[in-house]
Amino acid sequence: MALLVQKYGGSSVGTLDRIQHVAERVIQAKQQGHDVVVVVSAMQGETDRLIQLAENLTAEPHPREYDVLVSTGEQVSMALLSIALAAKNCKARSYTGLQTGILTDDAHMHARILDVRTDTIRRDLAEGYVIIIAGFQGVNALGDITTLGRGGSDTTAVALAAALKADECQIYTDVEGVYTTDPRLLPEARLLPQIGFEEMLEMSSLGAKVLQMHSVELASKHNLPVRVLSTFKEGPGTLVTFDDKVMQKRLVSGIAFSREEAIIALSGVPNQAGIEGKILGKVSDAHIEIDMIAQYTTDKENTDFTFTLQRKNYAKTLKIVEHLAQELGAVSVTGNENVAKLSLVGIGMRSHSGVASTMFQALGDVDIHIQMITTSEIKISVMINEEHLEQGVRAVHTAFELDKLGEHPQHIGVVAQSV
Amino acid sequence: MALLVQKYGGSSVGTLDRIQHVAERVIQAKQQGHDVVVVVSAMQGETDRLIQLAENLTAEPHPREYDVLVSTGEQVSMALLSIALAAKNCKARSYTGLQTGILTDDAHMHARILDVRTDTIRRDLAEGYVIIIAGFQGVNALGDITTLGRGGSDTTAVALAAALKADECQIYTDVEGVYTTDPRLLPEARLLPQIGFEEMLEMSSLGAKVLQMHSVELASKHNLPVRVLSTFKEGPGTLVTFDDKVMQKRLVSGIAFSREEAIIALSGVPNQAGIEGKILGKVSDAHIEIDMIAQYTTDKENTDFTFTLQRKNYAKTLKIVEHLAQELGAVSVTGNENVAKLSLVGIGMRSHSGVASTMFQALGDVDIHIQMITTSEIKISVMINEEHLEQGVRAVHTAFELDKLGEHPQHIGVVAQSV
Repeated sequence: MALLVQKYGGSSVGTLDRIQHVAERVIQAKQQGHDVVVVVSAMQGETDRLIQLAENLTAEPHPREYDVLVSTGEQVSMALLSIALAAKNCKARSYTGLQTGILTDDAHMHARILDVRTDTIRRDLAEGYVIIIAGFQGVNALGDITTLGRGGSDTTAVALAAALKADECQIYTDVEGVYTTDPRLLPEARLLPQIGFEEMLEMSSLGAKVLQMHSVELASKHNLPVRVLSTFKEGPGTLVTFDDKVMQKRLVSGIAFSREEAIIALSGVPNQAGIEGKILGKVSDAHIEIDMIAQYTTDKENTDFTFTLQRKNYAKTLKIVEHLAQELGAVSVTGNENVAKLSLVGIGMRSHSGVASTMFQALGDVDIHIQMITTSEIKISVMINEEHLEQGVRAVHTAFELDKLGEHPQHIGVVAQSV
Repeated sequence: MALLVQKYGGSSVGTLDRIQHVAERVIQAKQQGHDVVVVVSAMQGETDRLIQLAENLTAEPHPREYDVLVSTGEQVSMALLSIALAAKNCKARSYTGLQTGILTDDAHMHARILDVRTDTIRRDLAEGYVIIIAGFQGVNALGDITTLGRGGSDTTAVALAAALKADECQIYTDVEGVYTTDPRLLPEARLLPQIGFEEMLEMSSLGAKVLQMHSVELASKHNLPVRVLSTFKEGPGTLVTFDDKVMQKRLVSGIAFSREEAIIALSGVPNQAGIEGKILGKVSDAHIEIDMIAQYTTDKENTDFTFTLQRKNYAKTLKIVEHLAQELGAVSVTGNENVAKLSLVGIGMRSHSGVASTMFQALGDVDIHIQMITTSEIKISVMINEEHLEQGVRAVHTAFELDKLGEHPQHIGVVAQSV
C-alpha cells in the first residue's frame, strides 16, 4: 500500500464525462489498496472565462480580488469530482487551498508555496477518505486567497506529495508521458520510460509543456518521484527521478523545440567596456525578455552582439536596437523573425563528447544552416529557420537513434559507443 | 454617517454592466459618508448552471460537496464587484462566508446562521474599505462550507446587519419596493413607503417574492430596519419596520395572490374521531403539502372536509382522496384545479372590523364566487377561480382605495373611518 498524490489537469476534468472517468481512475487506485490524494485544475476553459470577466471590467484587475475570482475554477472541479466519487460509493472530501492550509507568500497571481498543512488530510485518509484538493491556489498569512500562476496545479501536487512524504506524485495529462520529441511534429517520437530531473527541467524550459518548471525543481529538491501519465490511455507513463541507472547509459534523452522565435544581430559595434549592459539595458527597459545571447569580438576595436527573443517582440525591439546602433556607431543591424529553437537534451552529454558534432553534422547533411548556438552542461540549442524545424528535428532524432528507443531492452536510446 | 448593509441580488449583478452600476451605487453611499458592507448573490443563472453540473453527474449530489460547488457562484460575483470598485478607486475587500466567519449549523444545502464574526469587517471598515461579503453561504464548526438554501443572501444581509448593529439593511432588487399588489397584474398598484414586519411576513408567505421569509423574521427579531429598493431606479423604496405610526392609521397594506392553486373537497364523510388525521396522513405520506384547510360538520353524522394545495399535485392527490372516499364511505369528492388565492393583508385589521365584509362585498359586486375562506389576525385569504384573479384583485384594491395611496399625505391608504 502506497500513498499516491494524483494530479489531473484542466483537459482531464474538462467535461462531466471526463470527471466520471477520473473518478474511475481514482477508485481503481483506491481498490489497489493505495491512499489517494487528488489535486485538480479548473475545467478546461474555465480559468480563461473567469479572467475574461475580470478583464472586461478593467484592464488591470486588483490582484487580491483576481485571486478570489479565478480560484473558484478549481473549487468547482474539486466539488464535481468529489460528487462523482460519492455517487460511486467512494468516500471523498474536497478542500480549497485555504481550507487545506496551503500557505503561500503574499505575491497575488504568482504566489510561492511556503508550507503545506497535512493534519486534515492525514485525519481524513485514516478514516478511509479520498481527498480532493484544489490545485493552483493557497492562502497567505492574512487569510487571503492566493493563486500560484499558470500551471500551478503541478506545483500544488508536488508540494503536497513532499509534505505528505508520498510514495509517488502522479501527474495525469492528455499525453502519455515525456517523449523523445513532440509526437505531433514527429510521429516516430518515442515515449521515455524514465527521465532525469535536470533533463526534465531543460525540456520544460525549452517549451516541452508536460510539467510546470517550478514543480520539477520542487520535486527534485525533495527527491520525490514524479510520474507523468495519460488520463485517457492506460500505460506506465514516464518516471521523472534521480535514479539514473538507465539514463546514464543513454547519451541524449530528447529534442525540445520552440517556434515563434526571432534573432537580432548588431555587428561592428565599437568595443567599449559595459557595451553589453548598454544594449540589453535599453531592451529590458522596454520589458522585453531576452533568451540566448552570443558575443564575438571580431577584432580589438569591434564586437558583434547577437540575441534571441520571442517573435511577438521582434518589431518593437528592432526599432530600439536600430536607434541604439546609430548612437553607438555600429556597422549594421540584421534580424530574422522566422527562426525556431531546436535543443538536444541529455544527462549523458556530461560524460561523453561528440554529441555536438553529431548534431551539427546531422543538420548539415540536410542543408540546414545554424544561425546561433548555445550550450549548457546537458543541452545544446541551435537557432534555425522555422520552415526547417520538422526536417531538423527528424534529422537529429534519427542521428541519435531516438526513433529506435526501447526496441532492444539493453539499448535504451543511443549509448555512448554508438556515436 | 451611518453603517449600511446593502444586499444586491442575482439580477442586480447579472451582467458586467450591472456590476459596474452596482459599484456606482456603492460609491455613492460611500461618498455620502456612510460605512458600507455589501452582500452579493451569484450572477443570475449561475447557481442554476452549477446545480445542473452536479445533477448531470448524479441525481443526488453529496450535500457537503454540493455546497462547495454552488458557493463559488457568490465568490465570483463578490470578486467581480470588488474588482469593479478598485478600478474606480474605491478601496474594497471581498470575503467568502468561510473567511468572514458566518457560522452555521451542519445542515448542508439549507443551513441556519448561528453567529456572525465581525472583527475582520470592523477592522477593514475602520481602514476605509468597502466590504463585500458572499451571500447565501457560511461555514460549520468543522470548517466545511455550507449554504443557506435559496434566497439565503437576504438572510446573510440581515444577519450581518444585526451582528454589526447596522443602521439599515438595504435590499436592492429589480423592483422599486413593496407594492399594494403586484404591479404586473394591476398597473394602478402603489408603492408602499412603509410596511410592518408582520405584514411583510404575510406578503412573503403569500407569494409576494420581495424578501425571503426567514430574513424578515430575523430582521423583526432584531428590530432591524430593512429597506427594499430598486438597483436600477432611484427612489426611497419601502421601509420594513416596527415603527408603525403611519401604518396604524392604515387599514390594509396590500393584496398578495398566488396562482397555480387547486382545491379538493370531500363531502359527506361519516364523522368519527381522528378522521382529519386519517385524510391528511394519506396525503402527506405522498409528500404533498397542504395549504388551507376547512372543515364543516354539516350534521352529527357527516362532515365536509376541504383543503387547498399546489396545482401540480392536484391529479395525484385527487386519486388518493377518491380512493380514501371509498374506504371512508364519503358521499362525494369534488375538486377544482383552476383556482387562485387572493389575500388581503394589513395590521389595521387587528383593531378595525368590517374589513372582511368590505372585501367579500367588493368581490360579490363583480360576481366573483368565493370558494373558500381562511383568516388570520392580519390577513384574509379567499380562493376564487383563477380566470377572475385580475378582476378580483382590482375590485378589492379599489374598495380599499389602495390605488389612491399617497395621493394625500395625511391619507396613506384607507383609514378606518372610510370603511
